[in-house]
Amino acid sequence: MEGRHQARIMNWDDLFSPKWRGEANTDIAEVMRLSEMEGVTSFAGGFPAADMFRLPEVREVTDRILAEKGAQALQYGPTAGFAALREYLAQRMLDRFGVKTAPEEVVITTGALQGLDLLCRVLVEPGDTVITEAPSYMGALQTFATYRAHIEEIPMDEAGLQVDLLAERLAELKKRGIRPKFIYTIPTFQNPSGTTLNASRRQLLVDLASAYGVPLVEDAAYAELRFAGEGEQALKALDRTGGVIFLGTFSKILSPGLRLGWVVAPRALAEKLIAVKQTNDQCSGSLSQLVALECGRRGIIDRQIENSRVLLKDKAAAMMAALERHFPAGSRWVEPQGGFFTWVTLPAAAGLDTSRLLKQAVVEEKVAYVSGRSFYAHGQGSNQLRLCFSYPQTAEIAAGIERLGRFFRTQLEKNAPAR
Amino acid sequence: MEGRHQARIMNWDDLFSPKWRGEANTDIAEVMRLSEMEGVTSFAGGFPAADMFRLPEVREVTDRILAEKGAQALQYGPTAGFAALREYLAQRMLDRFGVKTAPEEVVITTGALQGLDLLCRVLVEPGDTVITEAPSYMGALQTFATYRAHIEEIPMDEAGLQVDLLAERLAELKKRGIRPKFIYTIPTFQNPSGTTLNASRRQLLVDLASAYGVPLVEDAAYAELRFAGEGEQALKALDRTGGVIFLGTFSKILSPGLRLGWVVAPRALAEKLIAVKQTNDQCSGSLSQLVALECGRRGIIDRQIENSRVLLKDKAAAMMAALERHFPAGSRWVEPQGGFFTWVTLPAAAGLDTSRLLKQAVVEEKVAYVSGRSFYAHGQGSNQLRLCFSYPQTAEIAAGIERLGRFFRTQLEKNAPAR
Repeated sequence: MEGRHQARIMNWDDLFSPKWRGEANTDIAEVMRLSEMEGVTSFAGGFPAADMFRLPEVREVTDRILAEKGAQALQYGPTAGFAALREYLAQRMLDRFGVKTAPEEVVITTGALQGLDLLCRVLVEPGDTVITEAPSYMGALQTFATYRAHIEEIPMDEAGLQVDLLAERLAELKKRGIRPKFIYTIPTFQNPSGTTLNASRRQLLVDLASAYGVPLVEDAAYAELRFAGEGEQALKALDRTGGVIFLGTFSKILSPGLRLGWVVAPRALAEKLIAVKQTNDQCSGSLSQLVALECGRRGIIDRQIENSRVLLKDKAAAMMAALERHFPAGSRWVEPQGGFFTWVTLPAAAGLDTSRLLKQAVVEEKVAYVSGRSFYAHGQGSNQLRLCFSYPQTAEIAAGIERLGRFFRTQLEKNAPAR
Repeated sequence: MEGRHQARIMNWDDLFSPKWRGEANTDIAEVMRLSEMEGVTSFAGGFPAADMFRLPEVREVTDRILAEKGAQALQYGPTAGFAALREYLAQRMLDRFGVKTAPEEVVITTGALQGLDLLCRVLVEPGDTVITEAPSYMGALQTFATYRAHIEEIPMDEAGLQVDLLAERLAELKKRGIRPKFIYTIPTFQNPSGTTLNASRRQLLVDLASAYGVPLVEDAAYAELRFAGEGEQALKALDRTGGVIFLGTFSKILSPGLRLGWVVAPRALAEKLIAVKQTNDQCSGSLSQLVALECGRRGIIDRQIENSRVLLKDKAAAMMAALERHFPAGSRWVEPQGGFFTWVTLPAAAGLDTSRLLKQAVVEEKVAYVSGRSFYAHGQGSNQLRLCFSYPQTAEIAAGIERLGRFFRTQLEKNAPAR
């Protein structure tokens, strides 16, 4: 056999399926790497701040679980998640979001992103159309891209997704025989823009999606973190036809490190999600699930939400004040009523490119952000950026925004036409 | 708008992508459900026994981590996993498997199954060919099925995969212009068969795969759990051309509930796996990773392995003795040297169907197993079954196998031709 079997270095490029040939999009990884550099003030990653975590309480809960239910915490669990956690979340959906659901419609996921990924696995074929807000969450856009979905973007204004434009687009797509697989929306404290869909548009959106037979995927990651203004109803609470899928996560209200989220979906869909989860990671972490459940039952999650709102309000105020003071004339930004983010639009005429400038901002000014282009499917946003006010200390925010504002003013002066 | 937007119940069936229409395969979920029924002795799920876990030590480690690195444990981590864990595993690969690798080639996954799923995401298009042992791990077969891979099965004998038959199949496929995307193998204490690939076949297999430019995916889930005989080299340790991908897991040597595994892959592939993981679950659990790392460093994992070997040896012996005593004449089974499983073949002529009989065995005899058919891609195995000796208490094994043996004897008598 020796003679026939010559050692040849494996050629991987030929083996990758078409969507994985060439360079991978590693924007999120790059953001994480830059943010972690020594001495950098990061407005980049959408992280909760360390002082939001209720560490002594989580520590105590975790220790009790390992003492009392240790063998269960270390063992495999059911693919759909522990029944007690699904029951808890069904009740929480009612209490917090006015959504009536059953434990069988709740699927525990390894973060909300897994929920979205599993949805794509069962719904999206290459070339299928998915509708998103523009801008939208970059993790979602990257996920859709791996399924080679065709992304139709609908612009937003200060009141969120422009539902009238969505109506036109749906009509036009229908004329062309296209039924989108779903509409992905973050209606409350949107990532990245910080805007919130107003009440009248919510009802219109739910009715519109239902009329066209297009599912609505409601990502509620930040929905409980309101620090100003009045609450809005979840889209899922307005759903009368079973077309709204709700994505929840423990990442922003308890801990991202536990990697836990949940999907609320009609039974027919929930069963498919469970079947595909079985082939993806079999089940979510047992210890994580038991910790999250006990933190929920003991009110730790609710206390963390209350405290996070206070912290976020201060941080957002600090950022708004600093933007006002230090950012270039002609810049615009969103004043959020909750969540982690604001969204800045620099004067377009100057031709700045926030993607190209990011590295320089980190190296020279020790400030990280995420460039606008990461949040669009089709290359827009070069004069925009997302700023996260959740993660840095309040005291850092003013200084970091001052440096970033000076940096952009300098760049604008460079680009100004010679007189 | 009201008039135009009539409420219609969402029709999900039309929306599912082709591979998700119709009934989902829920074999694993069914196995889990049956095993959990009150009073049932389960030889079904491939679970470590509760008394293998080192609960007091894991509890102490977890508490120290939450005390000392709590904010890191609750926060997002890097997509590829914490650098310190990747370094630890690179060293462990050398110490335990003789595999030289670099931390950059180690990707932390949410269980070994996620590693396999991510591999499919970057390599497998519908209709692509994947080669498996027959029988093979049902989780892997289900995963391959969701990618609509065409599965080519290669029979096994008591020395593992029949590499000569693989050589013929590869030659034949090549003649037809088909380059399989990979060969999936569990060379040591195979799931479900319990067999181990012998030394001479290992070298042949690695050389053969390399000669055909086909990657080998080595699933080493049980490889450290040897309780008899001599160790074999990992396929990855024999790899000179960068064509072997190694899948490791903490599930059988520390805890499945932490949901942690790892992939060792050439850099070009590792980068793709990280990019696709970013769109699947973003990162694996931070607390889990820190706990696993510290359990590794403190020798807790190695002590668990040593202790598990002793327990598994006793349990396997109990099962072998009981099979000998109680199973029908003409039955055959594998005598494993490690791992969790044995594989039973009932007399074929009698026409028993272990799939059809499973529910009855659970309800009437309070014994669960996994039917042979779950481990083949093309419907074979109706007279076979997998028995896991890891999970039940040693004392339960004799009684459970006695009941199961009696059950099958009764069924065989029913099926015997009238005289």
